[in-house]
Amino acid sequence: MDSNSIKKYGVEALGTFVLTFFGCGSAAVAGSVLGNLGIAFAFGLSIVAMAFAIGNVSGCHINPAVTFGLFVDKRISLKDLFGYWIAQFIGAIVAALVLMLVINNCADLGGVAATGLGCNGYGEASSTGISMFGAVLVEVILTMVFVLTILGVTADGKTGHFAGLVIGLTLAFVHIMGIPLTGTSVNPARSFGPALVMAFEGNTVALDQVWVFIFAPLVGAALAAVIFGAFKSFYKQEA
Amino acid sequence: MDSNSIKKYGVEALGTFVLTFFGCGSAAVAGSVLGNLGIAFAFGLSIVAMAFAIGNVSGCHINPAVTFGLFVDKRISLKDLFGYWIAQFIGAIVAALVLMLVINNCADLGGVAATGLGCNGYGEASSTGISMFGAVLVEVILTMVFVLTILGVTADGKTGHFAGLVIGLTLAFVHIMGIPLTGTSVNPARSFGPALVMAFEGNTVALDQVWVFIFAPLVGAALAAVIFGAFKSFYKQEA
Amino acid sequence: MDSNSIKKYGVEALGTFVLTFFGCGSAAVAGSVLGNLGIAFAFGLSIVAMAFAIGNVSGCHINPAVTFGLFVDKRISLKDLFGYWIAQFIGAIVAALVLMLVINNCADLGGVAATGLGCNGYGEASSTGISMFGAVLVEVILTMVFVLTILGVTADGKTGHFAGLVIGLTLAFVHIMGIPLTGTSVNPARSFGPALVMAFEGNTVALDQVWVFIFAPLVGAALAAVIFGAFKSFYKQEA
Amino acid sequence: MDSNSIKKYGVEALGTFVLTFFGCGSAAVAGSVLGNLGIAFAFGLSIVAMAFAIGNVSGCHINPAVTFGLFVDKRISLKDLFGYWIAQFIGAIVAALVLMLVINNCADLGGVAATGLGCNGYGEASSTGISMFGAVLVEVILTMVFVLTILGVTADGKTGHFAGLVIGLTLAFVHIMGIPLTGTSVNPARSFGPALVMAFEGNTVALDQVWVFIFAPLVGAALAAVIFGAFKSFYKQEA
Repeated sequence: MDSNSIKKYGVEALGTFVLTFFGCGSAAVAGSVLGNLGIAFAFGLSIVAMAFAIGNVSGCHINPAVTFGLFVDKRISLKDLFGYWIAQFIGAIVAALVLMLVINNCADLGGVAATGLGCNGYGEASSTGISMFGAVLVEVILTMVFVLTILGVTADGKTGHFAGLVIGLTLAFVHIMGIPLTGTSVNPARSFGPALVMAFEGNTVALDQVWVFIFAPLVGAALAAVIFGAFKSFYKQEA
Repeated sequence: MDSNSIKKYGVEALGTFVLTFFGCGSAAVAGSVLGNLGIAFAFGLSIVAMAFAIGNVSGCHINPAVTFGLFVDKRISLKDLFGYWIAQFIGAIVAALVLMLVINNCADLGGVAATGLGCNGYGEASSTGISMFGAVLVEVILTMVFVLTILGVTADGKTGHFAGLVIGLTLAFVHIMGIPLTGTSVNPARSFGPALVMAFEGNTVALDQVWVFIFAPLVGAALAAVIFGAFKSFYKQEA
Repeated sequence: MDSNSIKKYGVEALGTFVLTFFGCGSAAVAGSVLGNLGIAFAFGLSIVAMAFAIGNVSGCHINPAVTFGLFVDKRISLKDLFGYWIAQFIGAIVAALVLMLVINNCADLGGVAATGLGCNGYGEASSTGISMFGAVLVEVILTMVFVLTILGVTADGKTGHFAGLVIGLTLAFVHIMGIPLTGTSVNPARSFGPALVMAFEGNTVALDQVWVFIFAPLVGAALAAVIFGAFKSFYKQEA
Repeated sequence: MDSNSIKKYGVEALGTFVLTFFGCGSAAVAGSVLGNLGIAFAFGLSIVAMAFAIGNVSGCHINPAVTFGLFVDKRISLKDLFGYWIAQFIGAIVAALVLMLVINNCADLGGVAATGLGCNGYGEASSTGISMFGAVLVEVILTMVFVLTILGVTADGKTGHFAGLVIGLTLAFVHIMGIPLTGTSVNPARSFGPALVMAFEGNTVALDQVWVFIFAPLVGAALAAVIFGAFKSFYKQEA
C-alpha cells in the first residue's frame, strides 16, 4: 500500500472519528437539553469542519454510504471502496470508545449551559461534573479538531474570505458538544479573562482550574499541527 | 416532449417531493419538540440541498409561485410554466402520501432526541416507535437525498471548497426530520461504532438492529447514483 | 432628484420595511416560543435576503447607523446620508404599522408550530388564529420577499452556486415569522399536497382553505416581479 | 516595535475582546434561556465577524492556541507568538471587566425575548432590567462591532455577494447577546418605527427611551469608522 493511500485511509478514519464523536456525543451527553436542531448541526458541522481539514487528502467521505454512491457513479476504485470502508468503521468504533470514556468521566449527563461569567471548569464547576482528566481529554480533542480545520482551510491561500465563515462554524461546532462538559475553552485567553475577573470578585474556582484550559488547548493545537504536517503535501501540491 | 423537458419536469417533481416531505414532515413528526426555528431550517435547507442536486437541470424552482415570478420576469416560457406546475403538484402530493405512510408507521409523534451513545434504532429504540419497515423507508429516502446532493455539488469540479459547506448543511437537514424517527443514520459506520460499544457494555439492542442502518443507507446511496446518472449530462455539459 | 436616487431611496425604504417587519414581527408574534436565537436569525437573515434583492441598487444599508458609519468613512455623500435616513425611517414606520395590522388580525400571540401533516391554515387552523384577510396579507408579503430575493440573486448570472445557499436561507427566514401565523406557505404545491392527503383521511379543513395558499403566493410572486422590474437595470448594468 | 506590529497586536486584542465579551456574555447574561446552540453560535459567529473586520491585519487568531498551532506549523515568528499572546490575554481580561460592568448594570439575568412590537428598551422595558447607562454602553459596543465588520467586508470590493451573508450573520450575532439586555437595536430606524406605532396605541415607554437607540448606534458607528480608519491601509494594500 503506497504512502498516499495510507494517508487517505488515515484521514478517513480521523474524519469518521470526528463525525461520530461529536455527532453521537452531542446526542448522548446532552441531547434533551440541546434539542434536535442542535444535534442536527453537530452532525452537519462535522462535515463542514472535516471537509476543509482533510478534503484535499481523501475527499472527506467519512461515510461508507457516500463512498458507495461515489463507487456506483464510477468516481473511485474498488480497492479504495474497501480501504475507505475499513478506515471509516475503525474511526467510528474508536470514536464510540472514546465517547464512552468521556461519559464515564461525567457525574451526570444532560447539563445546561455554564454560568458565572461564562467561565470554563470541571468537577463542581461543570454542569456534567466531568473529571479533571475528562476535561483535559475533551479540550485536547476539541482544540485539535478546531486548529486542524484552521490549518486546512488557510493552507492553500485559495479560500480567501471563505475561511472566516468555515472557522466560525467550526468554533460553533466544538461548542455544541463541549458546553455541557467543560463550557468549551479551546482558547486560553477566553478562559483566563473571565477566571481572573471572577477571582477579583472573590470566587477563585475558575482561576484555580484555569491551567487545564491553558495547557490542554496548547497541547491540542500542537497535536493538530503535527497531524497536519503528516498530510500537508496534499495541500501544497494544489498551490 | 423532448428528453430534456422530461428530465427538467422530473427533477422539479423530485425537488418538490423533498421540500414537502422534509419541511411538512419536520412539522408533522415532531414540530412541537423541534420548534419553529428547526422547522424553518428544514424548509430552508431543502432548497440548499436541492439547488445543488438538481439546479443545473431545471433551476430548482420546486415552487409554483417561484416559477410564476420567473415567468412574469420573462425568464421561462408558457409551456415550461405549465410543465413545471404540473410536476411540482405531483411531487408535493406524492410527498404527502409518503409522509402519511411514514406517520402511520410510527407509534407516537413528538419524539425527543435519541439517547444511549447516539445509537440509531426503530421500535422501542426509536422515540417515535417507528416500525422496521418505516425505518428502512426513511433511511433510504434520507440517504438518497444526502448522496444525490453530494453527487451534484461535486460533479462539475467548479464549486471547490463551497461543496464542504453545502454537504454539511445537507447532513444537518436530513437529521432535522430523521432524529425523532430513527435518530438518522444515513451512515453505516456512524451507526455501527456506537452499536458495537453499547454491546460491549451489555446492551445489544442497537447491534441487533444495526443491519437496517447498514443496508438502507447503501440502498439509498446506490439509488442516488442511479437517479443522478439519469441527468448527469446536465452537469457534464457545463464542465 | 434623479431617477437613480429615487430608486436607491425607494429600495432602502423597502429593505428597512423587511428588516423591521420580520425582525420585530418575529419577536412580537411569537418571541417567547421562538427564543432569542430564532429572533436573532430573523433579524440577521433579513440582511442576507435584502442584500441580494436590493444590494446592487443602494448597497442595502437599511440602517441609519450603517449609513452614518459609511459616511464617516467617506463612502457616501451628505445628500445620500439624508436621503437614506429619511427612506429608512419611512420604511420602519410603515413596517410597524403593517405589523400592528397583522397582530390585530390574530386572535392570540405566541403560537406553537402547526400540526396535521404540516398543512397551512388560518382561523381555527392557525396557532395564532389569524383571520383570512391576515393570512392573505402575510402570504403576499412573505412570497414577495422570497421571490424578490430569488430574482435578485439569480439576475446577473455571477453568483453561481452561491444562489442556492441564499435562497435556502431566505426560505428559512420567511418561515421564522410565518409559522405561527399561517404555517408559511409561499408555495402552492407545498400547501396543496398535504391538504389533499388530509382530505383523503377525512379532514377537509386544509383543502377548504388551500385557495388562500395558491392565490396569495401567486400574487406575491407577481408583485415581486413587478417591483424587481422597476430596478432591474441596476442588475443588467453589471452583467 | 514597528507601526504594523502595533496594529496587528491591537486588532488581536480587539478581536479577543469581541469573542470573549459576546461568547462569555451570551452564556452569562441569559445562557439558560438561550440554550447551548445559541451560546455555540455566539462564539462561532464572533469569528465570522472578526475574520472580516480584522482578518487582513493580523489573520484574526484571537486565540493563543490558534497562534501556537500556526507557530508549530511555522507560519508565524516567535516574536509574533508572544506579541499575539500578550494582546489576546489583554483583550480577554478587558472583555471580562466590561462584561462584569454590564452585568452589574442589570437588575436580573436570564431574561426572555422582548415583547411589545419588538421595541427596544431599558429599565422596566428590558427583560434584564438593564440601566440606561448599561443600555448605552451595550448599544455602542454592539453597533461598533456590527459596523466594523461591514466596513471590513466591503472594503476591498473583492468579497462581492459574500458580504451579504457575512453582514447578515453578524447582525444575528449581535442580537444573540443583546436581546435580553436592550432587545438589540444597533439601528435607529428599527427602534423608531415600532416605538412610534406603540405611542399611537397609547404606550409611550418605547418612544420616551428611543433617543438611546438613536444616539448610541450612531456613536458606535462613528467609533467603528474611526477604528477602521486606523488599519484601513491593510485593506487598501490588497486592492
